Amino acid sequence: MKKDNYTPTMKDVAREAGVALGTVSKVVNGLPVGEAYKIRVENAIEKLNYQVNSYAQGLKANKTYTAALLIPNTLHPFYASLVYYINQALLKRKYRMLLCATDFDSKQEQEYITMAQQNKVDGIIGLTYNPNLIIEENIPFVAIDRSMGPNIPCVASDNFAGGQLAAEKLADFGCKNVAFLRTGSSLSNEPNKRKAGFENGCLSRGLSYEMKILDDGAPYEEFEIFLKEHIRNGKLTFDGIFCVTDGLAYSVLKTLRKLGQNVPEDVQVIGFDGIRILGNADYICSTIVQPTAEIAEMSVELLLQENISVRPPLVCLPVTYAYGGTTMEPS
Amino acid sequence: MKKDNYTPTMKDVAREAGVALGTVSKVVNGLPVGEAYKIRVENAIEKLNYQVNSYAQGLKANKTYTAALLIPNTLHPFYASLVYYINQALLKRKYRMLLCATDFDSKQEQEYITMAQQNKVDGIIGLTYNPNLIIEENIPFVAIDRSMGPNIPCVASDNFAGGQLAAEKLADFGCKNVAFLRTGSSLSNEPNKRKAGFENGCLSRGLSYEMKILDDGAPYEEFEIFLKEHIRNGKLTFDGIFCVTDGLAYSVLKTLRKLGQNVPEDVQVIGFDGIRILGNADYICSTIVQPTAEIAEMSVELLLQENISVRPPLVCLPVTYAYGGTTMEPS
Repeated sequence: MKKDNYTPTMKDVAREAGVALGTVSKVVNGLPVGEAYKIRVENAIEKLNYQVNSYAQGLKANKTYTAALLIPNTLHPFYASLVYYINQALLKRKYRMLLCATDFDSKQEQEYITMAQQNKVDGIIGLTYNPNLIIEENIPFVAIDRSMGPNIPCVASDNFAGGQLAAEKLADFGCKNVAFLRTGSSLSNEPNKRKAGFENGCLSRGLSYEMKILDDGAPYEEFEIFLKEHIRNGKLTFDGIFCVTDGLAYSVLKTLRKLGQNVPEDVQVIGFDGIRILGNADYICSTIVQPTAEIAEMSVELLLQENISVRPPLVCLPVTYAYGGTTMEPS
Repeated sequence: MKKDNYTPTMKDVAREAGVALGTVSKVVNGLPVGEAYKIRVENAIEKLNYQVNSYAQGLKANKTYTAALLIPNTLHPFYASLVYYINQALLKRKYRMLLCATDFDSKQEQEYITMAQQNKVDGIIGLTYNPNLIIEENIPFVAIDRSMGPNIPCVASDNFAGGQLAAEKLADFGCKNVAFLRTGSSLSNEPNKRKAGFENGCLSRGLSYEMKILDDGAPYEEFEIFLKEHIRNGKLTFDGIFCVTDGLAYSVLKTLRKLGQNVPEDVQVIGFDGIRILGNADYICSTIVQPTAEIAEMSVELLLQENISVRPPLVCLPVTYAYGGTTMEPS
């Protein structure tokens, strides 16, 4: 498949443009040069398809033009989507991305950070559940979903508003008595605010509600038992359920089917995340959609910002509701 | 979150082990040294949690211990799964991975390769649909799913065997008259062998079959028209359908529902890929499962192999059948 082994050099550009090598270097490095020369060099660069060697530039300016992303895996669609959009946001800015799928392994996460420091990446974006992660002062770090300290910006969905929106939607669709089901890390993190937002929404809209909160690692069956306990004469006493993730909603929908409850006629279900089958087909349930593209853009922007003395400690981005078949159809 | 800014150096290891700096260097670089010294150095490395600076090693040995992965995106679950397993396979070997989501953009793909060359990555693994990609001779390259030349190893599922297995399964489950539906790149590639394998399986098992093959970009509706044309007295004349991907099967299942056909009672459907909802929950249909973890391991192994004079031009890895609700239940 080798069609052409010719890679133009800075010398070729100088020859093509009819200028001195130093002039090309100045243009490439953004230093001032007469406008006519600049245009000639830029035209030559385009004509020859000359690639500025940003790696060498990086070494000179003590930059690598590389950022690392720490994320548990790319198998879960929410993570996969973040990886995609962060990759796009970095590449758009001519940055390369080192991917480190950490598999929730705290030791491995720390090793990646050490490795990253030694390799002088320009920064790290991390979605991690490790409360003891050691982050060196000299490495720009942006956290997703979990605040890691006052000097490390955290970017997340507006999880509180999302929980509230779920309650409001259930109220709009005629629910009176609802449940909130939650499992996941008990570590203080942004997604935990979904609960408080939901309670707030229930109170302001006059919904009765009950909560069932399981610790990370507790068996799913406890939700089944909870739901069974709330069946009177074959009918679930709840007419709405908010699940903390679409993944949990998916399991709950199966349980409801098993218990002979019709969704959305008997009970409406809303999840959180905005997961679509095959990445771009149907939502797996009605859901509060996380703005992954916006989270990615904001994280990269904050990571690469220079000459900024105050970084925002927490940025919450707006979520939206999407119909996915498990609530009343939009009219 | 900064707990400790102390990073041990090679000098610290020498002091801890009570040996000369040169001895530590030899151990770290794998050069011969007395066994007793080696053990003392290794113990000191472990005690101090000293990180071998493989980046500096890389520069010295003209290696970067970095590989690049070119893949269309991480939004489609098959790609997302490949990214995850290739990442794991590289990290296990102390290699870093640059991720380049190319979004099917041929120009961008070529730019990544040029960029990769300039940055001296040790190799590239690429899943690309660009027939004109220029790959330099001096960059180890492993292709996934599409052969790119006799000197570039290609790793893929055994797509022929997979197509054949789909036909055999439909025959096992009692089908007599089946259809093959295909859309996708018309470029010569490994997945195209699914068709030939399916035909072969149909012939050997005495199944009547019909094919409907659409060019990339043709509207999905043509499959709907095709299926409608094969309804006699409200009943589809096919009792089995093999779809070239799970994604296509997902759409076909919707169409069959719309046409009032019951799956699997009236017609059984098998897809290809092995996509699971949420990455690890149910299959979206009965399917031929691609061994993504094995494809990843093999690709990385072939990429990093040194001192090998003959590389296998094509490696096909075994696929399996999985029940996903759209065929007769396994007894």
